[in-house]
Amino acid sequence: MTESVLDYMTRLGRAAREASRVTARATTAQKNNALLAAARALDVAREELIRANALDLDNGRANGLDEAMLDRLALTPARIDDMIEGLRQVAGLPDPIGTIRDMRYLPSGIQVGKMRVPLGVIGIIYESRPNVTIDAASLCLKSGNATILRGGSEAIHSNRAIAACIQLGLAEAGLPAACVQVVETTDRAAVGALIAMPEFVDVIVPRGGKGLIERISRDAKVPVIKHLDGICHVYIDVAADVDKAIRVADNAKTHRYAPCNAMETLLVHEGIAARVLPPLADIYRAKGVELRGCPRTRALLGADVLEATEQDWHTEYNAAILSIRVLDSLEQAIEHINHYGSQHTDAIITESFTDARRFLTEVDSSSVMVNASTRFADGFEYGLGAEIGISTDKLHARGPVGLEGLTSEKYVVFGDGHVRG
Amino acid sequence: MTESVLDYMTRLGRAAREASRVTARATTAQKNNALLAAARALDVAREELIRANALDLDNGRANGLDEAMLDRLALTPARIDDMIEGLRQVAGLPDPIGTIRDMRYLPSGIQVGKMRVPLGVIGIIYESRPNVTIDAASLCLKSGNATILRGGSEAIHSNRAIAACIQLGLAEAGLPAACVQVVETTDRAAVGALIAMPEFVDVIVPRGGKGLIERISRDAKVPVIKHLDGICHVYIDVAADVDKAIRVADNAKTHRYAPCNAMETLLVHEGIAARVLPPLADIYRAKGVELRGCPRTRALLGADVLEATEQDWHTEYNAAILSIRVLDSLEQAIEHINHYGSQHTDAIITESFTDARRFLTEVDSSSVMVNASTRFADGFEYGLGAEIGISTDKLHARGPVGLEGLTSEKYVVFGDGHVRG
Repeated sequence: MTESVLDYMTRLGRAAREASRVTARATTAQKNNALLAAARALDVAREELIRANALDLDNGRANGLDEAMLDRLALTPARIDDMIEGLRQVAGLPDPIGTIRDMRYLPSGIQVGKMRVPLGVIGIIYESRPNVTIDAASLCLKSGNATILRGGSEAIHSNRAIAACIQLGLAEAGLPAACVQVVETTDRAAVGALIAMPEFVDVIVPRGGKGLIERISRDAKVPVIKHLDGICHVYIDVAADVDKAIRVADNAKTHRYAPCNAMETLLVHEGIAARVLPPLADIYRAKGVELRGCPRTRALLGADVLEATEQDWHTEYNAAILSIRVLDSLEQAIEHINHYGSQHTDAIITESFTDARRFLTEVDSSSVMVNASTRFADGFEYGLGAEIGISTDKLHARGPVGLEGLTSEKYVVFGDGHVRG
Repeated sequence: MTESVLDYMTRLGRAAREASRVTARATTAQKNNALLAAARALDVAREELIRANALDLDNGRANGLDEAMLDRLALTPARIDDMIEGLRQVAGLPDPIGTIRDMRYLPSGIQVGKMRVPLGVIGIIYESRPNVTIDAASLCLKSGNATILRGGSEAIHSNRAIAACIQLGLAEAGLPAACVQVVETTDRAAVGALIAMPEFVDVIVPRGGKGLIERISRDAKVPVIKHLDGICHVYIDVAADVDKAIRVADNAKTHRYAPCNAMETLLVHEGIAARVLPPLADIYRAKGVELRGCPRTRALLGADVLEATEQDWHTEYNAAILSIRVLDSLEQAIEHINHYGSQHTDAIITESFTDARRFLTEVDSSSVMVNASTRFADGFEYGLGAEIGISTDKLHARGPVGLEGLTSEKYVVFGDGHVRG
């Protein structure tokens, strides 16, 4: 293109801002029609999608992408099914826009309440997985926002093919094409431009590795809804039911190793350690989980357990590795979590009402659980219908972010000619 | 002091972070006791407060502060009464912390809900008015947060004297002194340090002139809850009741000129302009309001109305000046507001249900009103009990920010040994 990247992104930004005024007032039926039409378009375009994806996969292999990256990049028939199903599910979710809550009369006679409204324009920056194009576009559209999607250059053909289906959906519903725009250039300067246009973009949601997210957070001139670390803990309290403790601690670690809500550190009260740790260690060993422990853990489980270093308590393994610490009290567990944790998801296993109550109050994480696996920290499991990510921020959205996290509220005030005295 | 400003601020930050763990779990009674004890301490310390303030006023005069600034700086007996009353009111507000909402069973059998929690540590940066010390400290404490207060150097003696009363309150309630810390140095580097400590400070609330707020927003490494412009509009629809229109347009402009929620631009549908503008102009002229209008306004009101320039539509006068524009339609009014406005507060005067509904949906401002004066956009008038400011941001807090805006929510999950399948 002869146009500079900055000019190109400015053009996209301006078009998105204009389109956001249309999405903001689009009816629920219109938004759902667009989503369902896009689903049908994906179904019809299966062959084109696989062909476009094959181009990306070939380029990826030629560029030496590793197997894990190629796997994330691949569009299989099952993954196309999932995208179609995802669009239908988002269409089926209640529309949050325009809901009014807490409308009430004030002493002056005015009525005041809050109306849910879109944020405006949302920029999504992501890597490899092409299905994010559908997930992000559908959630942003349903919540009345315009979107600018900037996927990885390695997925550009797949993303373009998916975007074409979204465009068919928008057209069928009578919505402007600029409601969902895919950045067509693979120039890295496009990201820099996207995160520095507060006049056109209201919020950035980066999805990808920690390096990408940290870089974007540092340089962005607009708010960022982000997910950093997932150093999740399970604390087995002295008053825990041993069976529940073993079941949850097993599941939180071994159900899947890679997700951010998998347990990385197991904390155990010394009063119950001798009853839960040996059987748990047997399970972990049988599943090939490498154990690293504090001195008391190693005294209980044997010297094949590596010594956990200070660094281990700070580490999100995302792998079949677990650090284990035996503690003297609930207080120590809370201190450990608030010090070493990432304010993501932490669970206590206990039958004690008082200990559960204290843990819930004092652990400062986006999800705090009692007698449940950290693996439940997920938009679908929480009933949000879908999620655009899990936020480890405190402001605005915290924890799994669904439609509501992509909205804001404004005050609405009704009077009958009321004036302030 | 021999300590560097950065070291000093780091010490304050670390102490605030530790204290925030105590404020987060402080009981409602403890927080209220601290507030009421601080109120009593202020009442006892009236003479010291006036003496400390006299020092600031003398210095201010010596340094050539203007009358408006000196007026904002002054602590009168009535203003001390207001601070005492403010503390009692905040003590009387419901405690938002720990409230749990939307707790419900999900298909997996877990229960999920949201619990309101403090943000952590809040940094407040403000100018001249010493009463902000009490307003900010009380709202932050009630919402379970630790606070670092950085007032203007011109008010340092007053702020120290007020802080001493807050300290007495904290001590009486058994809360650590670091729950509320006043920055003791007048070195400007303290502000730079305060806004760049994400490890110790969770959010910054700047209160003051636009220059201060823009500077802080640009340089902050932590989220900022901010208020920029207040370019508020009243639109008199073709279907307006003339009496209500005149009453509201008068009040919105002339009740007080300086506040951010005063009207700056009056928009009038051409179908009603001849009936409402001449009587309104008489009122404004009698009150000494300078009028600036579009050509159609001037044709109606006469040549003593100055011609409004493009710049006028963008201007927050905060003074006895009003710009007036006659328009052809509701659409044009919405476009004008979304283009020239500051997303603060905008009102429509109409008897038309359909026009009101459309205005509410399409005007993208933090407060949107029907048949009520923009002057109502205020935490007290909205029933929040108090406000720390009015946010013109979209993320997190929007509009008047009370206790809830100083909190976040975390997910709480209850199970009975539930694991993910």
